[in-house]
Amino acid sequence: MENNHITESCINALQNIKEKSPLVHHITNYVTVNDCANITLAIGGSPVMADDVNEVLDMVSLASSLVINIGTLNSRTVEAMLLAGKRANQLNIPVVLDPVGAGATPYRTQTAKRIIEEIKLSVIRGNLSEIKTLCGLKAATRGVDSGETMELGLNDKEYKVKQLAEMIKPLAKELNCILAVTGATDVITDGQQVVYIENGHPIMSKITGTGCMCTSLIGSYLAANKDIFIATVTAIATMGICGEIAYENLKDGEGTGSFRTRLLDAVSNFSEEHILKRNKIHMI
Amino acid sequence: MENNHITESCINALQNIKEKSPLVHHITNYVTVNDCANITLAIGGSPVMADDVNEVLDMVSLASSLVINIGTLNSRTVEAMLLAGKRANQLNIPVVLDPVGAGATPYRTQTAKRIIEEIKLSVIRGNLSEIKTLCGLKAATRGVDSGETMELGLNDKEYKVKQLAEMIKPLAKELNCILAVTGATDVITDGQQVVYIENGHPIMSKITGTGCMCTSLIGSYLAANKDIFIATVTAIATMGICGEIAYENLKDGEGTGSFRTRLLDAVSNFSEEHILKRNKIHMI
Amino acid sequence: MENNHITESCINALQNIKEKSPLVHHITNYVTVNDCANITLAIGGSPVMADDVNEVLDMVSLASSLVINIGTLNSRTVEAMLLAGKRANQLNIPVVLDPVGAGATPYRTQTAKRIIEEIKLSVIRGNLSEIKTLCGLKAATRGVDSGETMELGLNDKEYKVKQLAEMIKPLAKELNCILAVTGATDVITDGQQVVYIENGHPIMSKITGTGCMCTSLIGSYLAANKDIFIATVTAIATMGICGEIAYENLKDGEGTGSFRTRLLDAVSNFSEEHILKRNKIHMI
Repeated sequence: MENNHITESCINALQNIKEKSPLVHHITNYVTVNDCANITLAIGGSPVMADDVNEVLDMVSLASSLVINIGTLNSRTVEAMLLAGKRANQLNIPVVLDPVGAGATPYRTQTAKRIIEEIKLSVIRGNLSEIKTLCGLKAATRGVDSGETMELGLNDKEYKVKQLAEMIKPLAKELNCILAVTGATDVITDGQQVVYIENGHPIMSKITGTGCMCTSLIGSYLAANKDIFIATVTAIATMGICGEIAYENLKDGEGTGSFRTRLLDAVSNFSEEHILKRNKIHMI
Repeated sequence: MENNHITESCINALQNIKEKSPLVHHITNYVTVNDCANITLAIGGSPVMADDVNEVLDMVSLASSLVINIGTLNSRTVEAMLLAGKRANQLNIPVVLDPVGAGATPYRTQTAKRIIEEIKLSVIRGNLSEIKTLCGLKAATRGVDSGETMELGLNDKEYKVKQLAEMIKPLAKELNCILAVTGATDVITDGQQVVYIENGHPIMSKITGTGCMCTSLIGSYLAANKDIFIATVTAIATMGICGEIAYENLKDGEGTGSFRTRLLDAVSNFSEEHILKRNKIHMI
Repeated sequence: MENNHITESCINALQNIKEKSPLVHHITNYVTVNDCANITLAIGGSPVMADDVNEVLDMVSLASSLVINIGTLNSRTVEAMLLAGKRANQLNIPVVLDPVGAGATPYRTQTAKRIIEEIKLSVIRGNLSEIKTLCGLKAATRGVDSGETMELGLNDKEYKVKQLAEMIKPLAKELNCILAVTGATDVITDGQQVVYIENGHPIMSKITGTGCMCTSLIGSYLAANKDIFIATVTAIATMGICGEIAYENLKDGEGTGSFRTRLLDAVSNFSEEHILKRNKIHMI
């Protein structure tokens, strides 16, 4: 797939959300849930947050995608995640998992693994530690944030991306699912194709929820598009590009509070033009 | 009631909140709860969020009104809502219900109906789909957002408002309660009087929580005023006017993130002057 | 301790957070949790929110401090607080308690007292009503906000601070713990030393969460510093100074929504310079 072709497909993916305004069912954490709802609206989706076993089967049936985020998991919501995920599978509604903090505690790791075993996922998005944990690789976790990043110099960038891709491809193939590692450099693979994205800005790690919001964007793109690989790539590029724009729009004296606000601004103003001119999506 | 008379009453209603700074007990959802607390503070009230059965009876007894919002309902909080609501009734503390997503899932519809049956409500505020569902009318729901709006041209506006009012009046009479349908045009009735309000801006539907925040404003006005019809009308007009001001205050490059911030700004700076000059409250 | 000495120690305390970026485990409420996470990141810490009994023992073991905030307590989370707190004690991880609304309902008062009895706390931070309640003094509570403030004229300020300090010193000694009363004037004592701080701005009480955020800052400073008295003083001075800066940075037409954003901005830009030039920390 040529880069021009990807760009075109991404633009198409964005148009589809704007047209369809799809319903995105979230079972997510109470820390960043407001940001997740607002970013879904900002990109053109329609968020609904519902986590009780008494209604998740009904709610997910109305939705065009399901976002499962284990950020503040507990016994009650894990049960709802499993119920909703299985129903989504029956109805061919795509499911994206954000395995927040997998590797940090056994409960998180086991829950993430249980979800992976019991639900057919379309996409798993996490940071490097989380995805390595799920792949059975040794990972350095720190709470819910990654304890490691890929430090990529100019020369070894593509080499390191390939190296990571080779490590995670087996799980992507086994699960027939897209794995997305986001960080300074984002790496996305479906087990065959590998794309890496260099959009974004370091300040994104200075507010809570950029990972969760990225997953909500993936859920939004999945809900309106059949090509789940393109949907995932477009969502992650959208997040990175909007992070850049938000940073550029900071005024004197502003900091991370304003960055959070301007990030949502950028997403709500995001257009095909931004994809065309700013995307740093690379196929390898 | 003449329009001048309404305006005067609304101004008085606002003054009463500023003077009394009443305690508004919320049992609400975890998506927009922070916005609900902040808008209550911004208008001059004092919010308290408490949802556990071990304390809701005590907490509501201290409050001047109770806001029940079923946005992320579950078995635990529904029980707390019923307990708190009944105690509020015993103590003559007004209760407002936001039946978020009624019609979307049976659990939401049944819970909303149960609350209506077991608790004497002062006000129910919802979108068109939610209120129609409660009235036993056919409604098009989409998750927790309304699947329909009243499209009002210049000629048929009052006609359509009347039509809707006639549909919902019976329930208002039966429950001896105010019903408020908010949207592009807001319609409020106590079963006899009908008011419609044309303040607001379409961008308000592009952030999460404008409905919930409007309900919190109703709770705040109810807490400081005896005339619950005027309290409800003033709250809804406040929300619409502040939406307009927030939109006007957006700078170049800003979007929905900044709109959310500027909405709270507008409420915290809201004054009698704004009611006088901007209200589009109509009696029919 | 001389004032110059305190300032120097505070600067050192700030540097330690920036260097260590310590993990701060929160078990907190769902109203202000996002602000707590963002302020922890803004000052240089790394927040993790986890409240389930299945994982709090593991999570707190990874952390450098534990923040317990009872803002929206329930049976499930209270159990998690007690478990996590006891494990923290075993591992010598400092614990700070925010007894939100103690005095407002028996459940809050009893839970706060139970936590104090079962867990060795490093710091308790609350408003005047909450701390007086814990000290067994008569307090005027209003929901979760203080129903009283110290009205301090120029002449009687130090006298009143001393009076309050004498009232709360016995509990600080008994618990071998720092008590911090925040408000227009902040008073901090470890049972021997007494410091009061006059930074801050009245608008801080017009948004939700400034108390909770202050407690998160204490958790962050505790996590990176051995001198818990200095850590607490620095955190509270940080909050007050940033409140002043945020207020000064408000533009025309802005209100409490922007204040909240600019408060996080100020914390993310907070530096030794600000401590040096702006602190109003007084030892008595």
